[in-house]
Amino acid sequence: MDGRGGPVVRCDMTKSLTIGMVLFPDFTHLDLTGPFEVFGRIPGARVRAVAASKAPVTSDTGLHMMPDLTLGEAPQFDVVCVPGGPGVNAMLEDRDMLAWLAVQAGGARYLTSVCSGALILGAAGLLQGYRAATHWLSMDLLPLFGATPVAERVVVDRNRITGGGVTAGIDFGLVVAARLADDATAQRIQLMMEYDPAPPFDAGSPERADPDIVRAVRVQGATYLEARREIALRAAARLTPIG
Amino acid sequence: MDGRGGPVVRCDMTKSLTIGMVLFPDFTHLDLTGPFEVFGRIPGARVRAVAASKAPVTSDTGLHMMPDLTLGEAPQFDVVCVPGGPGVNAMLEDRDMLAWLAVQAGGARYLTSVCSGALILGAAGLLQGYRAATHWLSMDLLPLFGATPVAERVVVDRNRITGGGVTAGIDFGLVVAARLADDATAQRIQLMMEYDPAPPFDAGSPERADPDIVRAVRVQGATYLEARREIALRAAARLTPIG
Repeated sequence: MDGRGGPVVRCDMTKSLTIGMVLFPDFTHLDLTGPFEVFGRIPGARVRAVAASKAPVTSDTGLHMMPDLTLGEAPQFDVVCVPGGPGVNAMLEDRDMLAWLAVQAGGARYLTSVCSGALILGAAGLLQGYRAATHWLSMDLLPLFGATPVAERVVVDRNRITGGGVTAGIDFGLVVAARLADDATAQRIQLMMEYDPAPPFDAGSPERADPDIVRAVRVQGATYLEARREIALRAAARLTPIG
Repeated sequence: MDGRGGPVVRCDMTKSLTIGMVLFPDFTHLDLTGPFEVFGRIPGARVRAVAASKAPVTSDTGLHMMPDLTLGEAPQFDVVCVPGGPGVNAMLEDRDMLAWLAVQAGGARYLTSVCSGALILGAAGLLQGYRAATHWLSMDLLPLFGATPVAERVVVDRNRITGGGVTAGIDFGLVVAARLADDATAQRIQLMMEYDPAPPFDAGSPERADPDIVRAVRVQGATYLEARREIALRAAARLTPIG
């Protein structure tokens, strides 16, 4: 299907499939809403938004979402998905979130992330020895958590599936849907979502965007990225190396 | 930029730009969250989610969002954006929503929609004599409202900007951002969102998806599409023809 990663673990679609998507303050909502739109259309799938409390969670661009469950109420999910965003910085040292992810990892079929959400999986010690994707601006932080950065839209390594920045979550969602169900299901979802992209500009990757645009985006993100490096170093120092 | 439509109306970016995005039950959230992610990154833009009441609004896939404002509280927006989804059916005869859109149309710089949201603009009498895009499954209903259907991702006709199905909202958002600000701003947003799509399948349009996939999606949508045609016929009969 996507030619990457290990064996495909297909779910028994006769029973319900549960997918838990994590919300936290200042997350980038499209990291979550892209795959949510895909996952919500998988027959038999039940997608739940999970957060520290039941209060509305506000994204970095000001969209408010309501969680379905608190971390404490959440059952063991078949698939866990962690989005990214500026709020990742706080999550890298959020003991409740990291502990919850470590517990979920024990029973989940797939542990997944989109964008800088990979760093949260990393800080929970769940990417040691794995290949992973993340937002291009955070790629250099993955090795701190023992992960190998891969500049692809979607990276499958055993049961870890990680997507690149923000909109990569849609490509990621379709790859995951094909594994959870089958290629035809993913294609039906793609057609219903009319996912036949036609960006009006060719500026979606640092390799192809105008260098002035790349520079401007780096400057724009500089403050939280500098803070993120310091926090990631502290978080990485707490990990117990594996192997 | 996109080579379509009328003159570009650029906003005075020294003052705040307000964008109102409409929520209603059973909307398709990615219709809204795709462009919201883009709009929320336009410098000086203030994006507000508007609904009939302040209660959480649930999408067709079960994601809950909190409105910022009720229709009654909403100011005149510079840009109004209407998403689609199965809930469009009820909105085609929702007098409050249609009246609100008609009032907004009097002062908005741009009246916009994504996916089947175009039908709501149509039912409000706001697409008569305009070219418009919508979800491929609803394309045949646009002429009922005096609009000319165009099978493109984004259609600009004077101050109406309409996007195709669901994910077209991201392409749409970037086209609108370029008009509201400039091409460089849209490109910075595109790069921050890493919008360099790589769908794992080529099934995003009815022309290229496998015929079995197209048939399955048509069957899946048959019930609400049949109902939609009846409702659209009733809604169209209430319009006062222009010209």
